[in-house]
Amino acid sequence: MTLARFLAPRGIALIGASEGTAKIGGKVMATLIGRGYPGRLMPVNPRGGTLHGLPAYARVADLPETPDLALIAVPAPLVAGAVEECAAAGIPGALVFSSGFGEAGEAGERLQAGLRDTIRRTGIRVAGPNAEGFLNTRAGTAATFSPAVHVDPGSAPPGRDIGVVSQSGGLGFAFYNRGRGAGLSFGHVVSVGNQVDLTLSDFLRHLVEEDGTAAVMVYLESIPDVPAFLAAAREAARRGKPIILAKAGRSEAGRRAAASHTGALAGSAEAADAVLARHGVIRADDQDEMIDIAAGLTRHPLPKGRRVAVISTSGGTAVWMADACARFGLELPEIDPERQARLRAIMPDFGSPANPVDLTAQTSGGFAAALEILIDAPYLDGLIVAGSFTHTARLKSEGARMVELSRGEKPVLFYSYAPVADDARALMDRLGMHGFATMTGCVRAFRAMADHAAFRADVLPGLLAEAPAPSLAPEARAILDDSAGTLSESATKRLLAAAGIALPAERLVRDAEEAVAAAGAIGFPAVLKVQSPDLPHKTEAGAVALNLPDAAAVRAAHARILAAARAHAPGARIEGVSVAPMAPPGLEVIVGLKHDRDFGPAVVVGLGGIHVEILRDVALAPAPVDADGARALLLSLRAAALFRGARGAPPADLEALAGLVARVSALGAAAGPRLAELDLNPVFVHPAGGGVTVADAVAVIGDAPP
Amino acid sequence: MTLARFLAPRGIALIGASEGTAKIGGKVMATLIGRGYPGRLMPVNPRGGTLHGLPAYARVADLPETPDLALIAVPAPLVAGAVEECAAAGIPGALVFSSGFGEAGEAGERLQAGLRDTIRRTGIRVAGPNAEGFLNTRAGTAATFSPAVHVDPGSAPPGRDIGVVSQSGGLGFAFYNRGRGAGLSFGHVVSVGNQVDLTLSDFLRHLVEEDGTAAVMVYLESIPDVPAFLAAAREAARRGKPIILAKAGRSEAGRRAAASHTGALAGSAEAADAVLARHGVIRADDQDEMIDIAAGLTRHPLPKGRRVAVISTSGGTAVWMADACARFGLELPEIDPERQARLRAIMPDFGSPANPVDLTAQTSGGFAAALEILIDAPYLDGLIVAGSFTHTARLKSEGARMVELSRGEKPVLFYSYAPVADDARALMDRLGMHGFATMTGCVRAFRAMADHAAFRADVLPGLLAEAPAPSLAPEARAILDDSAGTLSESATKRLLAAAGIALPAERLVRDAEEAVAAAGAIGFPAVLKVQSPDLPHKTEAGAVALNLPDAAAVRAAHARILAAARAHAPGARIEGVSVAPMAPPGLEVIVGLKHDRDFGPAVVVGLGGIHVEILRDVALAPAPVDADGARALLLSLRAAALFRGARGAPPADLEALAGLVARVSALGAAAGPRLAELDLNPVFVHPAGGGVTVADAVAVIGDAPP
Repeated sequence: MTLARFLAPRGIALIGASEGTAKIGGKVMATLIGRGYPGRLMPVNPRGGTLHGLPAYARVADLPETPDLALIAVPAPLVAGAVEECAAAGIPGALVFSSGFGEAGEAGERLQAGLRDTIRRTGIRVAGPNAEGFLNTRAGTAATFSPAVHVDPGSAPPGRDIGVVSQSGGLGFAFYNRGRGAGLSFGHVVSVGNQVDLTLSDFLRHLVEEDGTAAVMVYLESIPDVPAFLAAAREAARRGKPIILAKAGRSEAGRRAAASHTGALAGSAEAADAVLARHGVIRADDQDEMIDIAAGLTRHPLPKGRRVAVISTSGGTAVWMADACARFGLELPEIDPERQARLRAIMPDFGSPANPVDLTAQTSGGFAAALEILIDAPYLDGLIVAGSFTHTARLKSEGARMVELSRGEKPVLFYSYAPVADDARALMDRLGMHGFATMTGCVRAFRAMADHAAFRADVLPGLLAEAPAPSLAPEARAILDDSAGTLSESATKRLLAAAGIALPAERLVRDAEEAVAAAGAIGFPAVLKVQSPDLPHKTEAGAVALNLPDAAAVRAAHARILAAARAHAPGARIEGVSVAPMAPPGLEVIVGLKHDRDFGPAVVVGLGGIHVEILRDVALAPAPVDADGARALLLSLRAAALFRGARGAPPADLEALAGLVARVSALGAAAGPRLAELDLNPVFVHPAGGGVTVADAVAVIGDAPP
Repeated sequence: MTLARFLAPRGIALIGASEGTAKIGGKVMATLIGRGYPGRLMPVNPRGGTLHGLPAYARVADLPETPDLALIAVPAPLVAGAVEECAAAGIPGALVFSSGFGEAGEAGERLQAGLRDTIRRTGIRVAGPNAEGFLNTRAGTAATFSPAVHVDPGSAPPGRDIGVVSQSGGLGFAFYNRGRGAGLSFGHVVSVGNQVDLTLSDFLRHLVEEDGTAAVMVYLESIPDVPAFLAAAREAARRGKPIILAKAGRSEAGRRAAASHTGALAGSAEAADAVLARHGVIRADDQDEMIDIAAGLTRHPLPKGRRVAVISTSGGTAVWMADACARFGLELPEIDPERQARLRAIMPDFGSPANPVDLTAQTSGGFAAALEILIDAPYLDGLIVAGSFTHTARLKSEGARMVELSRGEKPVLFYSYAPVADDARALMDRLGMHGFATMTGCVRAFRAMADHAAFRADVLPGLLAEAPAPSLAPEARAILDDSAGTLSESATKRLLAAAGIALPAERLVRDAEEAVAAAGAIGFPAVLKVQSPDLPHKTEAGAVALNLPDAAAVRAAHARILAAARAHAPGARIEGVSVAPMAPPGLEVIVGLKHDRDFGPAVVVGLGGIHVEILRDVALAPAPVDADGARALLLSLRAAALFRGARGAPPADLEALAGLVARVSALGAAAGPRLAELDLNPVFVHPAGGGVTVADAVAVIGDAPP
């Protein structure tokens, strides 16, 4: 069955219907009828009779016709049987309200497993259990017991509805109720419950693909089917339908592996954040944030940049709003002299035309005149009107013209610093004018709109290009397939070399004489390191000797570091000693990979030393990134100024480093989950033109080849 | 006259009164009458007759009795004359609505100067001009043209009113109108206008001192009388009346001197922030933030800490609220097993008793039962109840008990994830129950309450102790008085030494032989530096030689650095060359002072190298701080972990550094504005027990001694 039919069923069987509204079955029935369900509603109750004025049927098998959807509100132990009966009767889909499944301990999990078996066996599609149902305002179908649907659904221009998909029914319907209060229009609200069959991603995909929805608000705590979710997000991005996501449960994450620095720093929350951002998913931390951002994205065109003019009749609001814009990274360019002169003509001499524009309450022209003057300024990407719309006077005199001027290419956002009275709210609705309730909400919405415009311009083409996954050189694949656990530096470097990543000349030697010969061939000063998969922290083990000037020093160091390694880790498997040239000086950075089970490979960069360990100044992006993406990632570090040569140092070879990051990220994408972690630490970035030196590296191989 | 009388006048003359409400004079008259002004209202209008049903007088001199207050709404050029007449008639105070003064260019500034002269000459006290007036809900006096006062003023328990003082009339009255919508009660709203005579600080002080006010909301852009403002803030702190402040205009600050690092980093915005925080003033960025924080502080007891339990009937809301708590630094301790067992008894088996507590919508006991169980848990400082109060059912069944339980020692905050309908809102008001409208607002309020409790416990005693200002040694005072501009390192170190700050042995020498002798006496290795007030950046000038091992090296370096200094700055006044021992290694920090014209001296600390220059990781506190305060300031740096000996380094001598910071801050407090800037950079902090070495220092002396 299609989800369009599921969400707009021509007939509904309500299994577990009851009289009154004390029980869920009764509440759902009253809600469906009260909200004007237009199809045939067939209550099922063993006692038959009449319920809420409709004839009730004792069994599903007794139904006079086959409905499109069954709603199930019977005790948990009876649910699987009810679903079985529905399937037997040819009902294609069911929604289970009942709780007491996966969310309720072991007994519930067993019931959920049984329900899943029934679904698999019969082929019926099931939403829930433990779901609060759905509301389809366009189909007049409120299949829910949520009291929040008793609100006028409003109406949006065609194609401008907001959809809601939520793992929490309470929150999903609260988005609807609060959003309606803010003047938004909703097409669907879907509470997905435990997702035993139909998942949040399924409903998200449907709303993205159906024509009436302009944006989707999503609340979730976990994603059982990340690939499906990301496919829906990609399709949403392709169709220009933003997803505004609250992903809760962050504060309880935080289980992180620590086999390498990257492992300790990247984690599934960070990987999820990076992948979702790459797909254009917009994040929010509270209901009002989601509603403000949804309003910005569905009621206004996207701005081309972050340059705004603020127009107010309150000087204080103008100043304060300018601060808020700065806090959110918006720019307020000074208005040009010619337009300033025209603005002066519509304000008393104690007004201010520069930006923020303070028209004062005594303005002769009002907002419409100011908008006329400013709307086509080529250095403005949008406008914010901060007035007092408490009363209807100004709305009546110039509201229509303000709305008309806001219907062009540039977004014009309206904010009322005084609360909007009911009659003024109604007039704004009639005018088709959205008003933001808070200054921060208004500015945050503009920022989200500008961010989303930047995503569409800069990131989306790459996302949609669907470049084939980078391929892995056969030698590199062979190393991955033949290894397990933590690799030694030498083994890791063989993997890097096989993947085409340039490394300093280096030899693995068996004894002191080989070491001396190798150092002579490679050139002094030399570096010696004991190679062992059991010594991930070589320096602490005394297994490294730096800056060895000649053969004698190499010979002495060889003995010393082997003895130290054996003393430090008596059982360590020692593969030999590596001999390499001493790296020339450079800025110390870390480049890593981390494969997240759900969100795939991510590349991680950070500056070495205190930056990663103390200041947690790291940046992460889904792999692969190209050189441009790698450069942007590096420049997003707080300490990025160091690349430009701060404190008298020469500029670092950022291009070479970006190239390395891109190649490492391609390796991560090509290797798949088998390359669980990779940590290049330190990498020395030499002055511009001097390239980079990978001084040490460690890889961690995942369980079995997929 | 007292401000109590000004704000509750027994009689009012309204000069510039008019019929209708087109003009300000008419609006004010209609508002006073409409809001039930209980005293005698005497309109003054040259045409006499009757206005709004009251007899009008042609001139102030014609008034039948002397009112307590004159309200003036005549064109700006006529205002000074009107004030003169009021003073002549013995009216003690006036409020000027008229615009066109200091805010309106040069002509307006001249009018304002004239008005100020009239005030000084006559002794009348004047609020405004360019003010929107005031509302005193307790005296039934709405002396304003703001339409926002047409709102039911509500009523709070005695002593729990909120006061508003605002530089922006529009915002001040919007606080009232929005705050009323959120169920808050206000005693006074005062728009202070241009503050030609009575300032915002005056009205703030009055509200702090009068009994009915529990907290004050303040909007301002600048403070004309910082000492008066801080005195009012100190009195507010003493009386336990929080000030919630929006200080706008930050984004346009940013004019900073750059004579030293400290000068470049501290600035008046940072100094203001630090001083206001020291006085317990709470900052907010938007109207809803101010209202939420005011609600938290006036409707609830202060928590003793940051440990909360979250109780919800929506699992999603419970999880999301836990995230919000973590974002704001609140802790959610796990509930003890015994209380978990009691919670389990009032929830179905799919609930969760750990914290956050998910009672589920099917809870048998509800919030009241959960509160009974948790309210006395010794590991909880407060509770957050996150329910759906859309409808009245739950409020009717358990609202009274919930409110009763919230009236104890611990704060219990209520938040409704679904919007609250009008009848539910009315019921909550009757119950005396405040509900937060957003999750973030609720958590932010709790955070502000916990911060304020910490201020009262930790900072307030020191603020009220009024320790005498540290005294300055006579030699130090003499150096300050006899100097000007930027001092050389040697001169700066003389100042430090005179102030009792220990410095390494150091000699200023005239020639190479003296240098060799001094180095021999002090001990090798030695450091030589050219001393000149015209060489603030000695290293860049080549005027420094480090780590000189012997006499020959000292002799050669002496010639080399003098030649380099002369080549770098040919006209530089050279005082000589300093000889000092090479500092032992240590963590590099910067300690500075910056005297702000308005907010006084502040001490600034940061870690050296990239931390200050690239990462802007600095902390600032009003001077003086004691050793405890200095330690807390140092530990507030992002990179504070370095003090504890990160990356294998030994722990640094934090105690010695805190002692240095405290002594420097005492010097700043004692020296006053004459010591405009001081920059100790670098200071080496040696391993614990090893003390600190001030390696370089520069002071900037301000204009004339005060």
